[in-house]
Amino acid sequence: MNKIYNPQPETWSTLCKRPTQTFTDVEETVKQIFKEVQTKGDQAIIKYASFFDNVNLEVIQVSAEEIASAKNEISTELKEAIQLAKSNIYNFHQAQKTEKIEIETTIGVTCWQEKRAIQKVGLYIPGGTAPLFSTVLMLAVPAKIAGCKEIVMCTPPDRNGKINPAILYTAELCGVTKLYKVGGIQAIAGMTFGTATIPKVYKIFGPGNQFVTIAKQFASQNGVAIDMPAGPSELLVYADETSNPKFVASDLLSQAEHGKDSQVILVTTNKNLLNDVEEEVYKQLKELPRQEIAQVAINNSKLIYVETEQMALDLINEYGPEHFIVCSKNEDFFVDKIENAGSVFIGNYTPESAGDYASGTNHTLPTNGYSKSYSGVNLDSFLKAMTFQKITQEGIQNIGKAIEVMAEAEGLQAHKNAVTLRLNQK
Amino acid sequence: MNKIYNPQPETWSTLCKRPTQTFTDVEETVKQIFKEVQTKGDQAIIKYASFFDNVNLEVIQVSAEEIASAKNEISTELKEAIQLAKSNIYNFHQAQKTEKIEIETTIGVTCWQEKRAIQKVGLYIPGGTAPLFSTVLMLAVPAKIAGCKEIVMCTPPDRNGKINPAILYTAELCGVTKLYKVGGIQAIAGMTFGTATIPKVYKIFGPGNQFVTIAKQFASQNGVAIDMPAGPSELLVYADETSNPKFVASDLLSQAEHGKDSQVILVTTNKNLLNDVEEEVYKQLKELPRQEIAQVAINNSKLIYVETEQMALDLINEYGPEHFIVCSKNEDFFVDKIENAGSVFIGNYTPESAGDYASGTNHTLPTNGYSKSYSGVNLDSFLKAMTFQKITQEGIQNIGKAIEVMAEAEGLQAHKNAVTLRLNQK
Repeated sequence: MNKIYNPQPETWSTLCKRPTQTFTDVEETVKQIFKEVQTKGDQAIIKYASFFDNVNLEVIQVSAEEIASAKNEISTELKEAIQLAKSNIYNFHQAQKTEKIEIETTIGVTCWQEKRAIQKVGLYIPGGTAPLFSTVLMLAVPAKIAGCKEIVMCTPPDRNGKINPAILYTAELCGVTKLYKVGGIQAIAGMTFGTATIPKVYKIFGPGNQFVTIAKQFASQNGVAIDMPAGPSELLVYADETSNPKFVASDLLSQAEHGKDSQVILVTTNKNLLNDVEEEVYKQLKELPRQEIAQVAINNSKLIYVETEQMALDLINEYGPEHFIVCSKNEDFFVDKIENAGSVFIGNYTPESAGDYASGTNHTLPTNGYSKSYSGVNLDSFLKAMTFQKITQEGIQNIGKAIEVMAEAEGLQAHKNAVTLRLNQK
Repeated sequence: MNKIYNPQPETWSTLCKRPTQTFTDVEETVKQIFKEVQTKGDQAIIKYASFFDNVNLEVIQVSAEEIASAKNEISTELKEAIQLAKSNIYNFHQAQKTEKIEIETTIGVTCWQEKRAIQKVGLYIPGGTAPLFSTVLMLAVPAKIAGCKEIVMCTPPDRNGKINPAILYTAELCGVTKLYKVGGIQAIAGMTFGTATIPKVYKIFGPGNQFVTIAKQFASQNGVAIDMPAGPSELLVYADETSNPKFVASDLLSQAEHGKDSQVILVTTNKNLLNDVEEEVYKQLKELPRQEIAQVAINNSKLIYVETEQMALDLINEYGPEHFIVCSKNEDFFVDKIENAGSVFIGNYTPESAGDYASGTNHTLPTNGYSKSYSGVNLDSFLKAMTFQKITQEGIQNIGKAIEVMAEAEGLQAHKNAVTLRLNQK
């Protein structure tokens, strides 16, 4: 682990830099596959499923029978855990519903804002080493609460053409309407253009590797909205002498096991704690099944000592972590003043794992410093705010003159006329 | 105007298509300028201001003296109109503030969501034929309410290096913190990377021509968020026999004068109205100073007759207009069931001009069918929703088992350990 003592503010922008990724090779591949899916539809989907996932698919859509039998393939214990998580996620996202906002800005001029569901959404669930049914919960539950009519999900099958039963069970439980055995670039392209089988959607959600990340960029250039740009997962812990070094180490490791490119940082005002945490990390690391992955991330990780809490806070706001754990005697100071973080975990008994799975908050969060400008996925991600206005004949008399003057000053005579005609109507 | 009777649903996707724009040439230019601004900063800004805007700038930032003297250069009438508009826009956006949402999802597990301001935002105000001070109101007012610390504005100067006084007056009135005489691609690049003079921002807002549109795409690939993808402005009017053909024609023309590529559509269930509106359009068109521009948009416009209100509604939802005016005996039917529109204007005395300037709603809205997935600019556009959680020792006992089971099933042992260690703590 890299220990850094008293870094001066002029070095922070370098200290906060994420590894840059170059995508030139990937872009050509993505472009090619998008073009083929757009012109050849399902035929291209099947071709690339064979090419990338080594599977020969005759039917892309998951059948009702496959979903039904998934229920019997997972343990009652896991089903109950998923149901508990779903209930908490449901309650937290349901609480985010907002009422219509209506005001009469001037007498006779009534304006309101209402949120309406995005009608068709696409959820992408990556395959690979871990079956991420937790991500199904995080995306499908708020989509359902929002009232999205069509909730399409794509996830790559294994070599036998099967999808992990926990993913199928969770998708069914959360109200996914259509499920496809398609992964990677071809899945994103399919939901962008639509094929004979896969519906075109209006917004695509979900994490993925660099191929999926670039594919989502292409999707957004082809008229489809995306949840946010993706990047390697991140955790920054601020801890002082009131924290438990064992817990802190376990949190850093839970981030490190995600991938070799995971970003792991400890900031502290206590030098002893810094050393204690380091020692604990190496002790716990030895026991992990994903040790090889975690080791690489830990080698790149940073343990940063700063002299004051204010300094710590400023550095953390400059970094803008995806996940921010704070274990401090002055936790309120950090909680009140943190400006840039995806999700904040407070106190010794609040591990990041809680938010990853079951506390109720969403785990789809902005990485790579995007917490400075992006929200994590929340209920509003599945809704559009629309405005409405209704003006009476009295109302247009009250604001009409101002509109005429402004339209004239902007040189837009027809805008003015639309008001003048109404003002002159007896 | 193109009259279309009873278009069948299978033709709607063609009918709703916007003209495609190809940007290949533009992309190379944007790429080059971004590269130069990134490496050479202000020097590149000054070079391109000379190249594109034909102006030799020594100082990029607008001075306090220039702002002060702008006040004396515009009429009291215009100042009062701007103040009235500001007051309505302020009140409507202030009403959009949301409270902290907090729930205890399980005993001992408290989750909340709070919105915090994006610290640094950049507003782009185009130059060209019309001095769009109304767009300053629409962007700076909500930015200020949100609490953005740095509100940077860029707008191109005229050949004498001057900015229209109405723009300067409005910027000062609305609390813009820093103002620069920079336009086009170089302005967007400057706010993306930062220069010695122009601050780097976290999110860029505002309309622009195709160069600005592509530049904003590049900005978003370089880590800066943007408000939404831009495109030519659009108006769709649904009107029946209870509408006033003069008013409808004036609304269509106010859209048409924006630009030759403006999208203008009337949908009606009444054939007589269709003809009456057409006649009125040509009558009013002759009187417009921007007749030449409006004529082109009107030539491309569509007057569509359909047999039922349901058919009309379905077609409108398929199109997803930026602005939607409804003048109908059954206005509630359309207002309740419209799914895809940026902003809705209801009744005979609610011209689009009202929302463009002074009623209180925002005029920065999704075009090109993006109303299916994007909100128009609103208070939340300047905020991030962040989540927080605090779990007690009792709380982790309540959800810890579920987290362990789920982490194990996803093959993430370190995630499980972070919980197990806490569950075992006496």
